[in-house]
Amino acid sequence: MNNPSIDAVLAHIDANLDASRARWFDLLRIPSISAQPARKSDCIRAAAHIRDLLIGMGFEARLSETKGLPGVIATHHHAGGNAPRVLFYGHYDVQPVDPIALWDADPFEPQLVDQADGPRIVARGAVDDKGQVMMVFEAIRAHLAVNQSLPVNLTVLIEGEEECGSPSLDAMLEAERAALAADFVLVADTNMWNRDTPAITTSLRGLAAIELKITGPNRDLHSGLFGGPALNPIRALTRILGDLFDDNGSIRIPGFHDGITDIPADVLQSWRETGFDEAGWLAAIGLHHASGERGRTVLEQNWSRPTAELNGIFGGYQGAGSKTVIPAEAGAKLTFRLVPGQDPAKVIDGFKRFVTERLLPDARAHFEVFGASPGLMVPVDAPYVRAARTALEAEFGKPPVLAGCGASIPVVEAFERQLGLKTLLVGFGLDDDRIHSPNEKFEMHCFHRGMRAEARMLAAFAA
Amino acid sequence: MNNPSIDAVLAHIDANLDASRARWFDLLRIPSISAQPARKSDCIRAAAHIRDLLIGMGFEARLSETKGLPGVIATHHHAGGNAPRVLFYGHYDVQPVDPIALWDADPFEPQLVDQADGPRIVARGAVDDKGQVMMVFEAIRAHLAVNQSLPVNLTVLIEGEEECGSPSLDAMLEAERAALAADFVLVADTNMWNRDTPAITTSLRGLAAIELKITGPNRDLHSGLFGGPALNPIRALTRILGDLFDDNGSIRIPGFHDGITDIPADVLQSWRETGFDEAGWLAAIGLHHASGERGRTVLEQNWSRPTAELNGIFGGYQGAGSKTVIPAEAGAKLTFRLVPGQDPAKVIDGFKRFVTERLLPDARAHFEVFGASPGLMVPVDAPYVRAARTALEAEFGKPPVLAGCGASIPVVEAFERQLGLKTLLVGFGLDDDRIHSPNEKFEMHCFHRGMRAEARMLAAFAA
Repeated sequence: MNNPSIDAVLAHIDANLDASRARWFDLLRIPSISAQPARKSDCIRAAAHIRDLLIGMGFEARLSETKGLPGVIATHHHAGGNAPRVLFYGHYDVQPVDPIALWDADPFEPQLVDQADGPRIVARGAVDDKGQVMMVFEAIRAHLAVNQSLPVNLTVLIEGEEECGSPSLDAMLEAERAALAADFVLVADTNMWNRDTPAITTSLRGLAAIELKITGPNRDLHSGLFGGPALNPIRALTRILGDLFDDNGSIRIPGFHDGITDIPADVLQSWRETGFDEAGWLAAIGLHHASGERGRTVLEQNWSRPTAELNGIFGGYQGAGSKTVIPAEAGAKLTFRLVPGQDPAKVIDGFKRFVTERLLPDARAHFEVFGASPGLMVPVDAPYVRAARTALEAEFGKPPVLAGCGASIPVVEAFERQLGLKTLLVGFGLDDDRIHSPNEKFEMHCFHRGMRAEARMLAAFAA
Repeated sequence: MNNPSIDAVLAHIDANLDASRARWFDLLRIPSISAQPARKSDCIRAAAHIRDLLIGMGFEARLSETKGLPGVIATHHHAGGNAPRVLFYGHYDVQPVDPIALWDADPFEPQLVDQADGPRIVARGAVDDKGQVMMVFEAIRAHLAVNQSLPVNLTVLIEGEEECGSPSLDAMLEAERAALAADFVLVADTNMWNRDTPAITTSLRGLAAIELKITGPNRDLHSGLFGGPALNPIRALTRILGDLFDDNGSIRIPGFHDGITDIPADVLQSWRETGFDEAGWLAAIGLHHASGERGRTVLEQNWSRPTAELNGIFGGYQGAGSKTVIPAEAGAKLTFRLVPGQDPAKVIDGFKRFVTERLLPDARAHFEVFGASPGLMVPVDAPYVRAARTALEAEFGKPPVLAGCGASIPVVEAFERQLGLKTLLVGFGLDDDRIHSPNEKFEMHCFHRGMRAEARMLAAFAA
């Protein structure tokens, strides 16, 4: 097994930044929004683009068809039988872009914007996850350019449905079990602790997504002629949703908190010692008070507590001015973030019961579930985690923070359940990257340091 | 003063139905949606169309410009000094057409649809108010065709902003006070008791319209990274709106019911004696239970009680699937129907207080008021009301029901306040005409009998 100096690889990365960014932009220009059926052909185009990119780098690569959008599977297995087998996972799909009016430019025409702290790239998918995927690809490219080899036997899996709940992933993992054999999974879809401090994410929340629709009258009605005696579905809906939290911000769904264990006092203490700036975190999003569960810190809520979030609400007239209508239906979209111990199916059932118990007469509830995955913990003592800690410290001059994460990467649970693989979560986004929001960005500083850190980690896994 | 036989006028109406319908269709084809700024030129086109129609009938007619959409004012004052002066009011603007997908055909391409009970016209504005306006115009046209004169000195005022709260009406009435001088106002914008029984509307509810918007974070946020500790405006909104009614369906806004007097027991008894079919009324709209205030009948609620209706609600992601977003804002559109005694300004203030008292920390409430008018009663003992009762009984073979009305025609209050004029409300719509809804219709039977009844009333006013 070769173990050439990492320095030449890092120098190659530093010398080829413009070319790396140009390849990254090519991918960002493809509007691969997986949640929108009209974008299906763009998603397939993004998958083919990545396949061809990997073939061009010397991988064997192909699309893996599913009932939905295809995945990309590629292998570069030339490091010898003693080298570790790494499965790198990312996703090529992105979130919808609405409200489109709040973007400063076309979300799919990446902008290089200069700021006081350096240039940044603004585009949908800039960081989540196209930017982080390209960061890893460019680290691989540098290894191959300098050494004509990789330190590990690498398999790449790039999914196309992560942003809509990965409905086809289980079937794909099952079908591709042999192709995906590895020692562990590497994921680049998380954040740094801050601009100068890397992080390894050691816990993830699960996600259950559901749409609730309330129907009432058999058609839209004139609110002057029918208002009052005719059931108003918006009234029925807000009556239910307004009851979702008690005055302390605690979620009132029956059985919702079953299975959750309290975080030990010493862990809470270690979180306090991170020096997390709660006021600054709130100020950055225009707020002064922590919402959610009273008596729990922002960090504690984000890293260890479940949530119920209202992601959308709709019904009746939404145009300019007023319209005297009682709509025939109204609805809301919710997601629940789940922590280890909670049963996603039980949470969904509990919510349905919560709703149906509060329905006004004649109101009917209709549910559509978009996916449900549990929260989970990631081991911190495995050899590849120690290797990553060493590599990150070498790049940044300080050890990574071992952090919790409020977000969900359901695939991590799927890898564990289906393939028996643990996942190493190292990413280079920042908390203010506006992922899922207008003007999503990824800073060149983070992309550049991320490429270098990924190159170091690839070498360290084999050391 | 001439008082020729009405029979020739009625025969002329009967003989010219097709031509009347063709002229009605021409007006329906103009998409004059006053609430939508993009339709402004269509609204102005509708005003000019009506002006030219009246000029063609022998009226002096002109547009009356306002800060918003113009009104049409026309006069036909050749009945002599002893004839009554009648001001006919209608409106040429119509409601928005969304949800457009629920229409069976283009809302502005009127359809003649045959049904078991006769043909009907389906279009936006079919009845509200273009159909009723054309019904009166065609009655006038028949008088002029047969007698080359009208029994009354007639002034016509056709407004263009009724469906968005008549923001320019007060200024127009003030500016046109002299031109609009009359003995009373005739309005055709209400319903029959049923297909075979006419009605005179003797009470109207007022209307206060408001939009509430709640803002929170300074941008849309990722609900996994920020959910819980970051204020969710949809949560703040539903928490407030979910508290708007108590468990008995009573509105909880402070001071909301101030000034309302109970309906006397004998009046309630007379309402019960109308034989109103509550179960049938509910079944027609797909419901089985009366909503609203517990312990009050549908008729009592509609004719004598105020309401708070949620006409629209919006916020966050509304597309297909799910999106893990916390929106920066969420809002709702409400209208309050008011009864005599309630002060519209006090209702608006009470709602604002109700909202602000329930705001979560960091949530900010923004209000936009679209208009506020009180409820009012219409006298039933004036000479022109007695004339209308006689004419309606002659046409239908039974006396009209003296009915309350749950809807609002704010102009009636404006005529009283600004011009000192009382209003006679006789209309020929049916409760199932779907006004403000997809597939709005007006039955040819009602249009035809309405023309005849209007022709009889014009003659009766002068008798």
